[in-house]
Amino acid sequence: MSAPYADILDLLKIVPPGDENAVAAVRARDGQLTKPPGSLGEMERLVEFLARWQGKPTPTLNNPMVAIFAGNHGVTDQGVSAFPREVTAQMVQNFTDGGAAISQVCALHELNLRVFELALELPTGDITQGPAMDDKMCAATIAYGMEAIAGKPDLLAIGEMGIGNTTIAAALYAGLYGGTGADWVGRGTGVDDAGLARKADAVDRALALHADALGDPLKLLARLGGREICAMLGAIIAARAQKIPVIVDGFVATSAAAIAHAVNPTAIDHCLFGHVSAEHAHSRALEAMGKPALLSLGMRLGEGSGAALAMVLAKTALHVHTNMATFASAGVSGKAH
Amino acid sequence: MSAPYADILDLLKIVPPGDENAVAAVRARDGQLTKPPGSLGEMERLVEFLARWQGKPTPTLNNPMVAIFAGNHGVTDQGVSAFPREVTAQMVQNFTDGGAAISQVCALHELNLRVFELALELPTGDITQGPAMDDKMCAATIAYGMEAIAGKPDLLAIGEMGIGNTTIAAALYAGLYGGTGADWVGRGTGVDDAGLARKADAVDRALALHADALGDPLKLLARLGGREICAMLGAIIAARAQKIPVIVDGFVATSAAAIAHAVNPTAIDHCLFGHVSAEHAHSRALEAMGKPALLSLGMRLGEGSGAALAMVLAKTALHVHTNMATFASAGVSGKAH
Repeated sequence: MSAPYADILDLLKIVPPGDENAVAAVRARDGQLTKPPGSLGEMERLVEFLARWQGKPTPTLNNPMVAIFAGNHGVTDQGVSAFPREVTAQMVQNFTDGGAAISQVCALHELNLRVFELALELPTGDITQGPAMDDKMCAATIAYGMEAIAGKPDLLAIGEMGIGNTTIAAALYAGLYGGTGADWVGRGTGVDDAGLARKADAVDRALALHADALGDPLKLLARLGGREICAMLGAIIAARAQKIPVIVDGFVATSAAAIAHAVNPTAIDHCLFGHVSAEHAHSRALEAMGKPALLSLGMRLGEGSGAALAMVLAKTALHVHTNMATFASAGVSGKAH
Repeated sequence: MSAPYADILDLLKIVPPGDENAVAAVRARDGQLTKPPGSLGEMERLVEFLARWQGKPTPTLNNPMVAIFAGNHGVTDQGVSAFPREVTAQMVQNFTDGGAAISQVCALHELNLRVFELALELPTGDITQGPAMDDKMCAATIAYGMEAIAGKPDLLAIGEMGIGNTTIAAALYAGLYGGTGADWVGRGTGVDDAGLARKADAVDRALALHADALGDPLKLLARLGGREICAMLGAIIAARAQKIPVIVDGFVATSAAAIAHAVNPTAIDHCLFGHVSAEHAHSRALEAMGKPALLSLGMRLGEGSGAALAMVLAKTALHVHTNMATFASAGVSGKAH
């Protein structure tokens, strides 16, 4: 393994376990609440998830953060996106101005939105021609992501923006799980059939060029990019150490989790996948990791939008768990049988 | 058809269409918003649903109402529930005291919760021994449900509470769609294997006793009950006439929609099914009507809880649709291809 990644690999390989005592405390309270046991299904699982990875018998959501990482990609030179590259920076401005979908989800539900730009004026290298970045830059960008979430959120949703990055994510999945470009690419922001063919071809050429990096997930990440995927990986790593549960967004964000998973499957046990994207290969990637998604709403926007909706459910689940009456306090009779 | 149902049948058979001009207006605005076309998936469909059935090109959610109808059932004498019958009234008190799950979902998301008790001290007849109620009572209870929602909500979620009512709903589905009790019953609030067998047997005996009502949905409803299902049917009928879109909750609430659907499938076009319940036959009932559900969270609580979560998504979707920037206003470049 390369020296730049030594610390990162240590953090990925030796991960703290979840707090099963905290989960037990949540379950004990849940059993007292005025409802049939288990009747809130995944809503109960969400509270257990918060307890397990916050390490708190009474979980909190005082500072839920949606973090969006934005990057640009040289592979857009290959005509793989329906939108021009300058849209990445324009959308970053739109996020902070409140005009984007994620801005309004966060505003309505009082989620803290943070946007991190990653050298948008310097796109990564075109992966069909050379590496996206070198290993030093990759490691530094992972470290940037680790620092980015240091505001100590008690729940973190990670999402991204980057014209061209569904092609990058498709290449990462093909590199990790096999298959051709055609198996992993989709229409992204809405490319036509010719654009879809260009995406598949770009992935195939990139994988042929970087075949020597297959089997080394972090090297593969450097070769293919992008900066926002490196940063999301860093955020996932730092969150585990800082007892911050993570909700991962869709097709692109999941590729960051997939890199971590390829190093050590247990390194993403603190990650919940908020939704399954309409980008068809997202379900394939989730299956490859054996991870279910909470929601299936046919969304394919990115921006952390699916993760933020899952966060709204988590917030609701915790509010219900915390504020419901018990059988004893409400004077409701328990099970007869 | 019996005279008591004449007006109800008229309302079910001649239903106003949705407003496709309002939908077109929503789609026109959606196409201007700073996101790839279609990328919000079901969230876009939710806004269209509101526009179509409110008949408003700019839908509103100023008064979203969650209505819970509560009833008691003589069939509990057959040992079909894990909880004693008095829990229905205790939970009604808990709803209004704020101790129930639905109370807290509504409190967090500012949904108006209304609870309607239906003669809890007078359970319907035991359907294994005779009719739940006569046709006059059935028609009057449907009319009660029609009046109940007269507060003019702009979106209505319907849910229920009633110890024993999963047995009633199972009997209604078996009566409408065929099959035996075993095909339609589930564990409800959590009966054991013996309780499950008693539920299936109660359904089979009830259907044998009331075989002459098969093929007449409203007569079947009177025979099997319950009052809360009659009232939910009334709410569904009145909502259509008053341009109020409806989100239907789970296994029991859906049986009210199924009665309407059996009279005229288009009579529930203004109904959206909020979630698919963990009560296994719910998906079977939805399939019988050809209706998908928005969420699948393994919930089986009733109380309108799944419908209320879908309402939270609808509220979020409308907020996003209303407040997002357009490409022009945000200075974001449109599609390149």
